[in-house]
Parts: sequence; structure tokens; C-alpha cells
Amino acid sequence: MTAPERIPPRTLKGFRDYLPEAAIQRERLIDVARRVYRSYGFSPIDTPALEYLEILTGKGGEESDKQLYKFQDHGGRWVGMRFDLTVPLARFAAQHTAELGLPFKRYHIATVWRGENTQRGRYREFMQCDFDTVGTRSVAADIETVLVIHDLLRAIGFEAFSIQLNNRLVLTGLLERLGLADRSAPVLRALDKWSKIGPDGVAEEMQTAANVTSQQAAEVIRLAAVAGTNDEILGQLEPLVAGSATGEEGVARLRDVLAGAIGAGLPESRLKLNVAIARGLDYYTGTVFETYLSALPQIGSVCSGGRYDNLAGLFTAQELPGIGASLGLDRLLAAMEELGMIAKLSTPAPVFIAYFDAARLHDYLRLAAAIRAAGIGVEVYPEPKKLGQQLKYADRRGFRVAIIAGSQEFQAGTCQIKDLSSGGQQSIPLDLDSAALVAAVKQLIGIRD
Amino acid sequence: MTAPERIPPRTLKGFRDYLPEAAIQRERLIDVARRVYRSYGFSPIDTPALEYLEILTGKGGEESDKQLYKFQDHGGRWVGMRFDLTVPLARFAAQHTAELGLPFKRYHIATVWRGENTQRGRYREFMQCDFDTVGTRSVAADIETVLVIHDLLRAIGFEAFSIQLNNRLVLTGLLERLGLADRSAPVLRALDKWSKIGPDGVAEEMQTAANVTSQQAAEVIRLAAVAGTNDEILGQLEPLVAGSATGEEGVARLRDVLAGAIGAGLPESRLKLNVAIARGLDYYTGTVFETYLSALPQIGSVCSGGRYDNLAGLFTAQELPGIGASLGLDRLLAAMEELGMIAKLSTPAPVFIAYFDAARLHDYLRLAAAIRAAGIGVEVYPEPKKLGQQLKYADRRGFRVAIIAGSQEFQAGTCQIKDLSSGGQQSIPLDLDSAALVAAVKQLIGIRD
Repeated sequence: MTAPERIPPRTLKGFRDYLPEAAIQRERLIDVARRVYRSYGFSPIDTPALEYLEILTGKGGEESDKQLYKFQDHGGRWVGMRFDLTVPLARFAAQHTAELGLPFKRYHIATVWRGENTQRGRYREFMQCDFDTVGTRSVAADIETVLVIHDLLRAIGFEAFSIQLNNRLVLTGLLERLGLADRSAPVLRALDKWSKIGPDGVAEEMQTAANVTSQQAAEVIRLAAVAGTNDEILGQLEPLVAGSATGEEGVARLRDVLAGAIGAGLPESRLKLNVAIARGLDYYTGTVFETYLSALPQIGSVCSGGRYDNLAGLFTAQELPGIGASLGLDRLLAAMEELGMIAKLSTPAPVFIAYFDAARLHDYLRLAAAIRAAGIGVEVYPEPKKLGQQLKYADRRGFRVAIIAGSQEFQAGTCQIKDLSSGGQQSIPLDLDSAALVAAVKQLIGIRD
Repeated sequence: MTAPERIPPRTLKGFRDYLPEAAIQRERLIDVARRVYRSYGFSPIDTPALEYLEILTGKGGEESDKQLYKFQDHGGRWVGMRFDLTVPLARFAAQHTAELGLPFKRYHIATVWRGENTQRGRYREFMQCDFDTVGTRSVAADIETVLVIHDLLRAIGFEAFSIQLNNRLVLTGLLERLGLADRSAPVLRALDKWSKIGPDGVAEEMQTAANVTSQQAAEVIRLAAVAGTNDEILGQLEPLVAGSATGEEGVARLRDVLAGAIGAGLPESRLKLNVAIARGLDYYTGTVFETYLSALPQIGSVCSGGRYDNLAGLFTAQELPGIGASLGLDRLLAAMEELGMIAKLSTPAPVFIAYFDAARLHDYLRLAAAIRAAGIGVEVYPEPKKLGQQLKYADRRGFRVAIIAGSQEFQAGTCQIKDLSSGGQQSIPLDLDSAALVAAVKQLIGIRD
């Protein structure tokens, strides 16, 4: 036979493999998110990766259309790969509301695809981790969303972070009062440039691009510049929106959400009103929030979302108001890595059993079963290679404890147990049910009975 | 405004949504699988849903090629959606072996896509749940694979099942001895029809299609008909392969795998040698296995796999022998449903708090936080609707306990706690840290301190 022609093993640009170390970290983060979502009664759902193209493009602008992976399937149907979990949720809710009942609380942790530019470390495949409460306008759902974000960050391991809150009705109300309700889009576009061109630049752009008077522009600027403590901000917002029912509702709801979250036990130090948060132009209509890590604000918001009036208008006549947010898994993983919060492991099992005596495989397997029965993961090396080689493997993988027993030990009714971080080693009697060994392992890896 | 034109909300043929009830069940099953895989030191990995088309089609025949979802991406590259997790594992192993080190034990639980005929309840999108040990020929890995399958089935909740074992070398050895090594493909194709055309039909087809003598055919039939206890089967196989090193190795390995699994503590009643198991023509080269539920053998194998000599020959010159298996999530879910092993829930949280007194939202949120802090999931209804309506919602979702407190109760310093399955109700004092309430909830849902 001639040597076969080989295909170079490689991934597509913008796509990546998760090796064990990264996959273990991501699994842990997803586990935490699921546990928190579930603890509030959010249920998992899943939707197909492929949808009818019209479902996906119905609402998206040209930008997302360009990014979409789309093609004709075997039946000639135009289909696309989901680019977020919000459009699928809208389709799902419209399709199943009768069966689901309302309110409907779901989480959805799944992969999405965008064929976008891969500069700046962006990937074309990534996971989203969303939760939403659909079918209620109640402020209780807004408060709960803040509580969930707070619990998520703490459960992941963060203590220093701020959940920043705004309400879209506040600016809407001011614009209404100023007679500028029809110009919110160009006004928001101008405000978005605040950090680049400053308040004077924004004011000028509003006057030229949105046909706003200089006095009107000044009022908008005054709103956008509101700062201080939460109470100070509320105090400054109130006169700015006075007379606009919409604006007053926005300020009242900000007050209620803040009071509710604090009333439920959240420290106010982690809650910050911030009128600069807008979160896109169309979709959100009420409470909006972003979450920043105090140690790494520059990576951007790690959990963002907001309230919407009508989730699925594209698919159903039934109005579905709701509120939700999305945890930024990739950003959080990057942050945790940067902050040294991650133990680098490429095994999820803490215990390693060396296959030392070739004739004793059944004994090693029985020891492993006893440790496993105590809820502790354990790997038996599959070949009776040199002990040094096996321990090198154990070290590299990140096992914490190695169990070593040769014919000498078995004859003496003992085994050696080695702490792979300290290098310390002790001899343990091998009783019938391996109770002493299990106890020693538990002590070394820090599990209390 | 005129009424907007709506897009009918629907999924593609062969695709499906997972509503909470089904998603909760699937998540539970995946959790169990991950826990068992991890307990043996298997690490998670992930690979992209999209691969270069040549990676996916390299080895596949025309059949899988037809089923493949393929298209040109924005950069004009031909890409395909993965149709299994084995080809991506091969590409992954070839690409990363240097970094991973060997042996390499991975699990991979991920979605795959096949545009196949949707008759007979097949879906075009489904999850696979694979584990493999790559980089060793040791029988220890074969035994461990059996142990993992056994633990998986027990952890899911099955007690009556059989793991059926064979070794491809046995038939290969017999064919070698008969001088038919070059005719294994047509012989296997004939044997595959055993259940339809019987032993005589198989013998005839071997003679016509594979140019086998009637005496050779009789020997093959004798092998395929071997049955009895495990020991009887081994006793009958030995003379049939005597003189063929390959066949003798196959029988010896069957003996070792069986002895190892029993030696590690598995009951022999769950292990069954079965020479009829072949599992495809090319890929597997040694131990093969299938797993049948005693209560539902007709649904087919729920966990299958085997040993291969060379995982990634298409992508690398490095020989990567290994062994692995795949848990059939969909079949297991269907079986569990049929056997009544599934509690129908559409909430993952057991406790429901009614939002009874409109002014007491903060109190409800605080009660919920206290219960959640004890590790118990709890949902607060988001609106102060009529109690009957809220309890109907709680019933429908499958909550187990409802907590009801109105202004009367709060003034008396108590709340009502209701067992939603029995209907029983009791009054609990509301102390400062809700300790009595948490204790009562724990008792009702069966958590011991």
C-alpha cells in the first residue's frame, strides 16, 4: 500500500476547540449558571440550531443578515443557523404559549453562530447563557432579574461588582416632554458618541442631525450628565421628567427596582443607577442593566439585559412583555483567568491510581470503585508502565492524590498515598472495604464527612 | 398602522423544540452521564459545529455524504455541520496530541446534524454523548469502558440490563483460519441478515455472494450460532479459532474483559457474551459491546461502542488506538418515559411562594432568599393575582410546596405552608431568619439536615 494522502487537521477561522482545561472551566461556569437559574424557578428549554431563514431574518437588520450562516437544505428550504437565543425564544414563545402558560420563566444555554469579522478576538461560534421571564409587566420580575444577576456573580466567585441600572422610559419621557418623541433614534445615536466627542459634540450633533433646538439639546445633555449617589440621581431625574407620565413611570420603576433589590437583601453598594446605559435602540423599553467587575471594568459588561414590551410581535398577535438578561460566558472566563480565579486542571477527577503491579489490575479497579462509591473521581492508569512515567502523567493532568501499591504493599496489606502538590507520602492499611484509604483520600482533598 | 404581516412560528421538519418538561429530563440525564464520566477521569472537550467539509467527508461513504448539511461560508469555503462526534474527535486528537499527551480520556456531549429521512421518528438534530480512551491498547481500558457503561445505567436508575460483549478478532480469526480473510465484508453482510433469512439463508448467501464453500459456510454459521452461558460460549469459541493467533487473541481478550469487570465488582448477570454483535464493518477492530434494557430490549442498544486500532489515520501518521462508547440519550429518555421512571415537572424548583399581599413583595423576596440559601429552589409568583389562579399555576408547573402569607399571617408572625401533592396545610412561625420555615420545607420535600 502507498502512504495514504492525509487531510490536515485544522479548525475553521473564527472557530476553536475546547481542550480539557478550557472545557472544564466552561462546564463549571455553566453549572453555576444553571444552578442559580433553577434556584429561581427558571426552566431549561432548547431550540434547533437551524431555523427557517425567514424566522431569523424577519426582525434583523442588514448587519445581522450579513453575519448569518444560511444555506438551502436538502429539501430546497432556505435555512439559517441561529445567531442569538432571543429570536428563537420569540418564535418558541409564540408557538407554545398555550401549552406553556404564562408567566413563563426559561433559561437557555446554547451555541450561536455569527460569520462576523474575526479581528479583535471575536469568534464565529460562541455560547449564550440567557434567562427571561415572559408574560408579566410586574416590577417583581425586574427585581428578580437583578437578584439573579447578583446571585450569579457571587456564585461564580465575585464579590466586587456593580449592577448598573437605567430605565429607557426616563429618556423617552424627557423627549416626550420636549416634543422630540419622534426623534429618539438620532438623539440616541448622538448620545452614544458621548465618550468620543463629549457633551458639546453631542449637543451639536443633536442640533444638526435631529433638528433639536439648543435649549432642547441642553436638557437632554443635562439628563445624560446626571450622576451621584442613587438617591441623588433619582432626585435629579424627577424634575427633568416631571409632567411626562412615561418619564415619571421610568423614575418610579427605577426607585422600586432599587428598593426591592435592597429589600430582598442585596447590598446597595453593588447597585448603581447609571443614566448612560441604553442597550440598543429598539428592543428594550423599560429597565435595562449592565454588570461590571470592579477589578476589570474595561472588559465591559458581563451580564446585560432589560425589559421589553413585546417579545414576539413578528410571530403572534399576543403581546408578550418580559424581562431577561444574558451572562457573558466568554468574558467571564477571560476575566477569571486574568484574575487568577481558575485552577488549571485537565482532569475532573482528583485521585490517580498507578497501575504498578501488572498482575494486580483487578485490585486497582476495586480500590478505584471503593473511592468512587464515596463520590470521589478516580482514574486508573491503563498500562503497567514505569511508575515515574505514570506520576509524570498524573502531575501534568493536575491530579491531587496518587495511590501507589505494588506486590510488596499488597502483601503487607497497605498502599502508599501521595499528595501530589506537597509531595508528602504516607502508608495506609488496605482493609476489606478500603475505608481507611477513602478516609485518607478525603482528608487530603479536603472533603469532610 | 396596519396590522403587521406575521411569520408563522414553526420549526423545520425533523427538528424540535425542547419544552421545559423534556429539557429538564434531558438535562438530568446529561448530568448523570457527566458525573459518571468524570468519576473515571474522563475530561470534557468541545469542537466546532462547523468543520471544513473535507474533514467530515474524508472517511464517510456516499450515504453520510448525502445526509451532511453542507454549504459555502462567507469566505467561499466549503463547510459542513458535524454528523457525529467521532470524526471531530479524530481531527481533534490528530491536531492536539502533542499538547494533550496520551492516554487521553475525553467525553463529549454535543449536538450533531444529519439531513436524513425523518420517517420512523428520526430527527435531523440530536445529541450524542460519547466517551473514549485514546492512545492505549491495554485491556484495562476495555474493562473500564464496561465499568463506565455499568455505572451509567445504574446511576440513571436501571437495575435490569445486560451489557453484551463480543470481539471482532474472533470472527476475523476464524475467517483467517478458513482462508477467507479477504472476504470478511460480504460474509458480515450475509451474517447481518441472520434474523431475516435464518442460518440456512445466510449459508447460501455466503456461498453465492462470497464464493465460500459449503463447509466454510458451515463453520462460520457454527461460530455465529454459539450460545449458552459466558463460560460455555468461551469453551465453544476456543476450538473454532484454534490455530489463528488473531482469533485466539480475541477469545483471550473476551475472557480478560469479563474477568476484569467481575473482578472490579460487577455482577456477572449483567454481562453477556454475544457473538452476534458486529457493530459495522470497518471501524471497530476488537472488543465491541451493546447494552439492552431487560424491560425494553426491542428499543435496541442504549449504549454501544468498541475498540479501534487507528482513530485518526485520515489526519495523522501517528497510530491512535482506543476504545469508546456512546450513550443513546434519546432512546434512554424514551425508555424512561415508557417505564414511568420520569417525574413530570416543568419547574426545576420545588417551592412556590404566592404573591398574596400586594404590599409585601419585599417580604416574599426575603423568604425566598432564606429558602434559596438553604439550597432549595423557590419561585415567587410575579403578580399579586387571585390566590386560586396562582395555586393553579403552581399545580400545573409541578411545584411540591406552596408558601402562602397574607397581611393576617404577617401580623400574626406566621405563614401557611401547603403540600401540593397531599393538599395538607400547616401554619409555621416566621422567625427572623426563617429557620422554622426552611426546616418545614425541607421536611416536606424530603431533605434531611
